[in-house]
Amino acid sequence: MSSTFGTLFRVTTFGESHCRAVGCVVDGCPPRIPLGEEDIQGQLSRRRPGRTSLSTPRNEEDLVSILSGTEGGLSLGTPITLMVHNKDQRPGDYEDMASVPRPSHADFTYQEKYGIRAASGGGRSSARETIGRVAAGAIAEKILREWWGVEIVAWVSSVGTIDSPDADMQSISREEVDANSIRCPDRESAERMIALVEGLKEAKDSTGGVITCVCRNVPAGFGEPVFDRLEALLGRAMLSIPSAKGFEAGSGFGGSRMKGSEHNDPFIRKAAPDGSFRLGTLTNNSGGIQGGISNGEHIFFRTAFKPPATIGAAQETAGFSGETVLLEAQGRHDPCVVPRAVPIVESMAALVLLDLALIQEYRKR
Amino acid sequence: MSSTFGTLFRVTTFGESHCRAVGCVVDGCPPRIPLGEEDIQGQLSRRRPGRTSLSTPRNEEDLVSILSGTEGGLSLGTPITLMVHNKDQRPGDYEDMASVPRPSHADFTYQEKYGIRAASGGGRSSARETIGRVAAGAIAEKILREWWGVEIVAWVSSVGTIDSPDADMQSISREEVDANSIRCPDRESAERMIALVEGLKEAKDSTGGVITCVCRNVPAGFGEPVFDRLEALLGRAMLSIPSAKGFEAGSGFGGSRMKGSEHNDPFIRKAAPDGSFRLGTLTNNSGGIQGGISNGEHIFFRTAFKPPATIGAAQETAGFSGETVLLEAQGRHDPCVVPRAVPIVESMAALVLLDLALIQEYRKR
Amino acid sequence: MSSTFGTLFRVTTFGESHCRAVGCVVDGCPPRIPLGEEDIQGQLSRRRPGRTSLSTPRNEEDLVSILSGTEGGLSLGTPITLMVHNKDQRPGDYEDMASVPRPSHADFTYQEKYGIRAASGGGRSSARETIGRVAAGAIAEKILREWWGVEIVAWVSSVGTIDSPDADMQSISREEVDANSIRCPDRESAERMIALVEGLKEAKDSTGGVITCVCRNVPAGFGEPVFDRLEALLGRAMLSIPSAKGFEAGSGFGGSRMKGSEHNDPFIRKAAPDGSFRLGTLTNNSGGIQGGISNGEHIFFRTAFKPPATIGAAQETAGFSGETVLLEAQGRHDPCVVPRAVPIVESMAALVLLDLALIQEYRKR
Amino acid sequence: MSSTFGTLFRVTTFGESHCRAVGCVVDGCPPRIPLGEEDIQGQLSRRRPGRTSLSTPRNEEDLVSILSGTEGGLSLGTPITLMVHNKDQRPGDYEDMASVPRPSHADFTYQEKYGIRAASGGGRSSARETIGRVAAGAIAEKILREWWGVEIVAWVSSVGTIDSPDADMQSISREEVDANSIRCPDRESAERMIALVEGLKEAKDSTGGVITCVCRNVPAGFGEPVFDRLEALLGRAMLSIPSAKGFEAGSGFGGSRMKGSEHNDPFIRKAAPDGSFRLGTLTNNSGGIQGGISNGEHIFFRTAFKPPATIGAAQETAGFSGETVLLEAQGRHDPCVVPRAVPIVESMAALVLLDLALIQEYRKR
Repeated sequence: MSSTFGTLFRVTTFGESHCRAVGCVVDGCPPRIPLGEEDIQGQLSRRRPGRTSLSTPRNEEDLVSILSGTEGGLSLGTPITLMVHNKDQRPGDYEDMASVPRPSHADFTYQEKYGIRAASGGGRSSARETIGRVAAGAIAEKILREWWGVEIVAWVSSVGTIDSPDADMQSISREEVDANSIRCPDRESAERMIALVEGLKEAKDSTGGVITCVCRNVPAGFGEPVFDRLEALLGRAMLSIPSAKGFEAGSGFGGSRMKGSEHNDPFIRKAAPDGSFRLGTLTNNSGGIQGGISNGEHIFFRTAFKPPATIGAAQETAGFSGETVLLEAQGRHDPCVVPRAVPIVESMAALVLLDLALIQEYRKR
Repeated sequence: MSSTFGTLFRVTTFGESHCRAVGCVVDGCPPRIPLGEEDIQGQLSRRRPGRTSLSTPRNEEDLVSILSGTEGGLSLGTPITLMVHNKDQRPGDYEDMASVPRPSHADFTYQEKYGIRAASGGGRSSARETIGRVAAGAIAEKILREWWGVEIVAWVSSVGTIDSPDADMQSISREEVDANSIRCPDRESAERMIALVEGLKEAKDSTGGVITCVCRNVPAGFGEPVFDRLEALLGRAMLSIPSAKGFEAGSGFGGSRMKGSEHNDPFIRKAAPDGSFRLGTLTNNSGGIQGGISNGEHIFFRTAFKPPATIGAAQETAGFSGETVLLEAQGRHDPCVVPRAVPIVESMAALVLLDLALIQEYRKR
Repeated sequence: MSSTFGTLFRVTTFGESHCRAVGCVVDGCPPRIPLGEEDIQGQLSRRRPGRTSLSTPRNEEDLVSILSGTEGGLSLGTPITLMVHNKDQRPGDYEDMASVPRPSHADFTYQEKYGIRAASGGGRSSARETIGRVAAGAIAEKILREWWGVEIVAWVSSVGTIDSPDADMQSISREEVDANSIRCPDRESAERMIALVEGLKEAKDSTGGVITCVCRNVPAGFGEPVFDRLEALLGRAMLSIPSAKGFEAGSGFGGSRMKGSEHNDPFIRKAAPDGSFRLGTLTNNSGGIQGGISNGEHIFFRTAFKPPATIGAAQETAGFSGETVLLEAQGRHDPCVVPRAVPIVESMAALVLLDLALIQEYRKR
Repeated sequence: MSSTFGTLFRVTTFGESHCRAVGCVVDGCPPRIPLGEEDIQGQLSRRRPGRTSLSTPRNEEDLVSILSGTEGGLSLGTPITLMVHNKDQRPGDYEDMASVPRPSHADFTYQEKYGIRAASGGGRSSARETIGRVAAGAIAEKILREWWGVEIVAWVSSVGTIDSPDADMQSISREEVDANSIRCPDRESAERMIALVEGLKEAKDSTGGVITCVCRNVPAGFGEPVFDRLEALLGRAMLSIPSAKGFEAGSGFGGSRMKGSEHNDPFIRKAAPDGSFRLGTLTNNSGGIQGGISNGEHIFFRTAFKPPATIGAAQETAGFSGETVLLEAQGRHDPCVVPRAVPIVESMAALVLLDLALIQEYRKR
């Protein structure tokens, strides 16, 4: 198991779906950052099941506690422990799975790797593991915002075969994203996506989707070639989210089909924040990253999520002993996880960017 | 700069395009592995420019030396240093670039990050940096092959807009891949790809492409959730290769468009190597990875490369001082790097898999 | 702040003296280890203030909870979170220290480093930080004992200028160590030490001391030259304990005064556990470590602790503003911490040895 | 094997005594540092056998080459590779050792750990491994000196049972240290030490010794509690040097015998470099480190080295097969290594301090 992420801003997450608590320890947080539970709760609530709309009244559950690392509302520079209690349950819904691994789920591989697995299935592969990431990401995001003005916004850009038109990277906001339950800022697409998901829920089936994320105001110079190139770390971060199977930065797979003369982003004079000029680019096929290092333009990337493996529809498969069985998962299962994954994507982006920012700082001398 | 990769099998690469030497130090290599320069030279020669065909006579250049870590043809368990001399040159071809950063190249970002850059441009962003990776990967591959029977084969599956039909994951071999200079095993596609690249060379332009890679015989149990999930580490490894901009494992972006009932890979009885049965899957949309852990099926993934940034065709862009210039890169530049990236992809896959294999070993007790 | 220890068996501690909770996350624990709070509580209780004698009745406080990582009494291979609640107090005793840093305490350096510090003084430099280490160490020790038969016993070998005669490394047990409150197994020395400490308590003064530790049944082969030599990692571990200022393995400083002909440990035939012979050494000036690697003999080492900095006796010193003050620390302060540090030394030794054991395992193939 | 040291300034050493080359890769060096072979050669020459006096004429051997990472005399921010060729020899002197492990040497433990070892004995346990450390340390020292004014001076403070009087920490210089071949700045002690070593050479025996090191002008704030406390990292660094068996910072073992009222270092007003006042300490029992963090006073520590294991005098011991043998090591062996270890101690101190300095920098914001 590898549950720690980062070099200077290091996050260690803990917890599976049915233990006492989930959360994380954040080590290496700069001191004297104003920090309270309220800075963290917002993103946590956005990742909760069934809480995708801004209109939702105040959220009573998945409440985070800061166990250590702050005093008088300021970070001390010491490890910050963030904890959310699990409602401890051992639901009968999982009983079947003791003998039958769910197709495309982590049941089989956890059993093969560890020789044991949590009764509820994959355990750490549960979506509850991501609570720790989102809590830590909220801290990272706050520092990025206050120190460099960084803004991170992610949204659902496709669900199943429904693609939404490109959003405006410059202006898109979390308010727009949260304006509907599928978290797609294009209203017309959102309505079709919602209809698709409702139909799949009825059919006890599921669907995948794609999340796009933009990071604005990232200074040039973040990213550590060669093995910690910015694409490499963002890719690792996104592909570590449950169900993620694809990642592309900037033009990505589409860019591989272009000519250099079309794909290259010419340099032009742009206005710097202080009124002087800076070198920017006319186009942004690079997605704000060249040579593995941020170039001062918007960083953007897309992450593909496969459809959730646990479905109520009957599947013919084999049990651990090799016998053929017809599996119908009991209980309520989410037919589409991408709306909830939006704050997870934002959080992982923040963890990557802040760690690289702190590493870059020492070269400022 | 972050030039070290791995936890137990750790590779540190060094060198830029015009310093004295490039190479790597491999720390943590198991002892008593039979190892000589001849085990490494083959893959190194495959990554050389203009050496893409098996019919090429014996390769005289980029010769690797083992400086430390072996004795009597066996690894000692101590750091293995692999070195390839550079022909030290400071070509006049790069003079223009002192004042004009190449669009979409690393010139600008290296300058922003470090306040200095190698005269030849990006320095560490040069393709020569990958020599160290390929040399280390050859060692990793040898151990994977001898201890677990792992076979890793990569090939060019698209160039520009030319897609080749799917290869047979079960049987494809390096011999088939190397049968033509573009390294696409489908002969008809290969011919069209070669024609495309030759046309672009004429036009002083360039193109991107996609490499597919399969890893056969990987045992179930490799991969360390949560942050070192197998997709996450493979993705990081591939996205750390110069010009890589996209990665997908198994069904990838396409899988995000499917329903769970279509995408799930049902379990079936399969024959284990020892004659008993093992649980395998009927389909392989998971690409051999479930819950971030190998499941015993073929692991496969695709990596997208953007077109090379350095082109001879004229580009209007801005110099470091902001003045508009018309840039025409001098010298010979490769219009398509994906054929040469094939052994780099294989090498990075080997580095990921061996490191995870060694980490998993301690759980065998 | 650097709160994570280990490569494969990784411990992250958290918490300062007056936050909500202290504890740790253990990542990389092998799966299927029988593990409950009762496996951890024993060592935790041994490190509590005023609980140094075995005759003490059942300990009601510093109760540890396992928040994650086990199910049905077995480890899952996932992160194990161990937590002990703090009685949240902000005692007036610390008020003086807001303006006057205690001489030789962490008040001044934390303030210089972080620009902030916990109201109670050093915060993470508090002895309560060691709760996480001891809890994690108890798990490590259990695995070492069950898999390799390793036994770790530490004891107080000197207090102030009172040195006790050498203990018998082969036979000494925790029962003997805990037979008196100073944890020195030589009864006569123990009585003198206790008298010394009681006198210092009266005088509102403090004293340092030395702890010796032996690790029995450690197989040959643990330790990773060059930077993770066994002495180097044990030294780092011990010197990371609050107040530790010196470390020596085997003959240590005394060995530097010897001739090679006296110091060398000749090899002799010894009986192996399986009845065959193994190569052992006649003497053990090496302390069970040669070339940074365990040699199969008893590993032993000594750690020196300075006297506690916080004393009630008046000290002339300067406040943060530079003014001369007469400081008399209020409250009850421990005049001698070495008895309580005994389980901390044992725990840190276990963390080092288990991590090196797991790293060595992959070479077994 | 663990051959990499550091978090941001990372050094990977390579090479054993009889391979082609030894050296290191320095990753994470800040860019734009003026750097040439001449910055490194001086310390390398100080560590050579038989080159302990400043009066020695120009040193022709162990010449270092910079293979990568600099251009035009400046560091690029990329990995710096430093290499020294070995004179490749396989001397017959080592033949005996194939069947008989030298007492207290690494022969036995390397064989046990790796199942193989270099023909010349321990291989990586050879003193030649330290060339890479000293070369890297010279770079670290240059940056520490130029950016913070840090001065690091080590010297031999005892040889065998001959102790020299305390040196003046404030003024001692490398010139004084190198004024005699034993590197003890007290002339009278030096003469007795030299006589002792010459006698042992005659007797084919060896002796240990102690090195003291002072680091001046280290700013307050370096050191990362809890596991990377400054004592812990310095201790690890020193105990990773071949033959080191003991380490103490500040008052060390002696401090454990003192009362708190004697040991505490009272704060006083001192003049800051800019003319204002800073808080300093009257005494320095803490050795410049409190709570694991530098406090602005001189950092000092002592490292104990055991006598070299390889001696010419006859030793009764057992061979690998268990047979009793009389071993007399052939060839010339150094009866006392501490004078040569002086620059190694300085180098390891520089590696620790620069890495902690760079980590601390990001908190400056």
